[in-house]
Amino acid sequence: MVTTTSYVTNVKSTVHFSCISNQHRSHLNTKLKSTTLRTSMTQTPYWASLHADIEAHLKQTITIKEPLVVFEPMHHLIFTAPKTTVPALCLATCEFVGGQRHQAISAASALLLMEAATYTHEHLPLTDRPRPMINHVYGPNMELLTGDGIVPFGFELLARSDGGENSERILKVMVEISRAVGSGGGVIDAQYGKILYSGSDGEEKCHVEEIRHVVEKYEGRLHSCGAVCGGVLGGGCEEEIERLRKFGYYVGIIQGMIKWGFKEDHKEVVEARNLAIQELKFFKDKEVDAIKTFLNI
Amino acid sequence: MVTTTSYVTNVKSTVHFSCISNQHRSHLNTKLKSTTLRTSMTQTPYWASLHADIEAHLKQTITIKEPLVVFEPMHHLIFTAPKTTVPALCLATCEFVGGQRHQAISAASALLLMEAATYTHEHLPLTDRPRPMINHVYGPNMELLTGDGIVPFGFELLARSDGGENSERILKVMVEISRAVGSGGGVIDAQYGKILYSGSDGEEKCHVEEIRHVVEKYEGRLHSCGAVCGGVLGGGCEEEIERLRKFGYYVGIIQGMIKWGFKEDHKEVVEARNLAIQELKFFKDKEVDAIKTFLNI
Repeated sequence: MVTTTSYVTNVKSTVHFSCISNQHRSHLNTKLKSTTLRTSMTQTPYWASLHADIEAHLKQTITIKEPLVVFEPMHHLIFTAPKTTVPALCLATCEFVGGQRHQAISAASALLLMEAATYTHEHLPLTDRPRPMINHVYGPNMELLTGDGIVPFGFELLARSDGGENSERILKVMVEISRAVGSGGGVIDAQYGKILYSGSDGEEKCHVEEIRHVVEKYEGRLHSCGAVCGGVLGGGCEEEIERLRKFGYYVGIIQGMIKWGFKEDHKEVVEARNLAIQELKFFKDKEVDAIKTFLNI
Repeated sequence: MVTTTSYVTNVKSTVHFSCISNQHRSHLNTKLKSTTLRTSMTQTPYWASLHADIEAHLKQTITIKEPLVVFEPMHHLIFTAPKTTVPALCLATCEFVGGQRHQAISAASALLLMEAATYTHEHLPLTDRPRPMINHVYGPNMELLTGDGIVPFGFELLARSDGGENSERILKVMVEISRAVGSGGGVIDAQYGKILYSGSDGEEKCHVEEIRHVVEKYEGRLHSCGAVCGGVLGGGCEEEIERLRKFGYYVGIIQGMIKWGFKEDHKEVVEARNLAIQELKFFKDKEVDAIKTFLNI
């Protein structure tokens, strides 16, 4: 069980923390995010090993080369953005369905890149946003362009990863990632949601339902995508992939709610954990201990 | 021959127009871009037909659906961004190497989407940019997110376009597009270039060499990419594709220099046209009249 510092404790229906600005919440968010991950990683060697492989792959792939003005900020932003459990889940489900870790390493790296780009743009100082409270090493112009450059690079990584015999699976994974991070998917929609219901003109009440809605669209959708990508690349059958889609979604709910400060024994977290375990029951002949670590148990 | 209103007439080595801000140039840019395209389209039925097919395909693909808050601005920004000759060139080279137009329609549409996203982000009001002089229907937050949503949607369109037998060609095209619009390619680099050499603190001299540099990276790189994508999807052989890569690059130089206000008979434009014609000579058994319209002759 992972212990995190919670700023919301056993909320019932309404959380009275300040919604004065997105930026504050997002800052809090980030701090919690890193804390959660760091704690989890030291406690589960499986996660640590998955993350280490993805980082190593990315470091090998994204070298600082000419034009430096492009690659230096890109390198910086990719490796300093807070990491989530999405890319590791992608590798884990690949192994879970019987695949080799290396088969999903490009997809996992692409997912990490998409998240880094989203994080960069989420903290971009726009004229209609309050100045974000994160430390900006580069100017807004550079951050915008770098974020813009990271996304196609993620797709390139994936497109290049095929030796020729796996192209259909890769295209399938691309559709999944595009939908999850694009307009049709959850991330953009969740970001709109955050903007819409976060007031910039004073204190507001943020409902658990609203947080849940954002977590479903954001962490739920992304983890679901990560789990599917790993399943597809590991050679899972259709039924297995659809089970993993749901399993990933519940992992996202758990990780997302905890990131927002909800306790491990909060009703929403416990419910999601039970539903995730239900999905794993389908895989009768599989070893589930490793993948269960994503449920923080 | 296409006639455009020039704001730079037969420049020799230095152009003395104002470089006070990016925004001014970019505005001028946009105005010229649309003028150039509109004039060309009425004069060459081939372009008009290619463009009409791409627009029709996009209109069919990008319907306004739920969530409206996501799809309505996306639809608006895609269809109001100024169009270039890149997507049409993609269809044209596909036909040129013996392919059917429909084989490249998704790639052409994806290229149009990438350009629309670039345009949207290029005019985003950031805190370190002067207020752009274009009309903004949506707030910066919405425009940022919509631009972010358009790029993955372009990749999705492409990934989905395969019936199963063409996946390797599609992955090849994806690598080309990712490189052209991403950090490794020209577009981001050209945008950095624009920022770097455009002063915000007074009048400067903009050298023809500097404009040429941006045009090479931006229009050159994108047209080159468009031409290659069409060639790949139309089934061109390796040598044909490499010739088209160079041909597309020169088309980009011509279109880019004209967009910046250089006359049709300017040295740089004439030179690029001659080099493009040289590349076409490789295709001895092909009908070159249609594709030559991209050279404005």
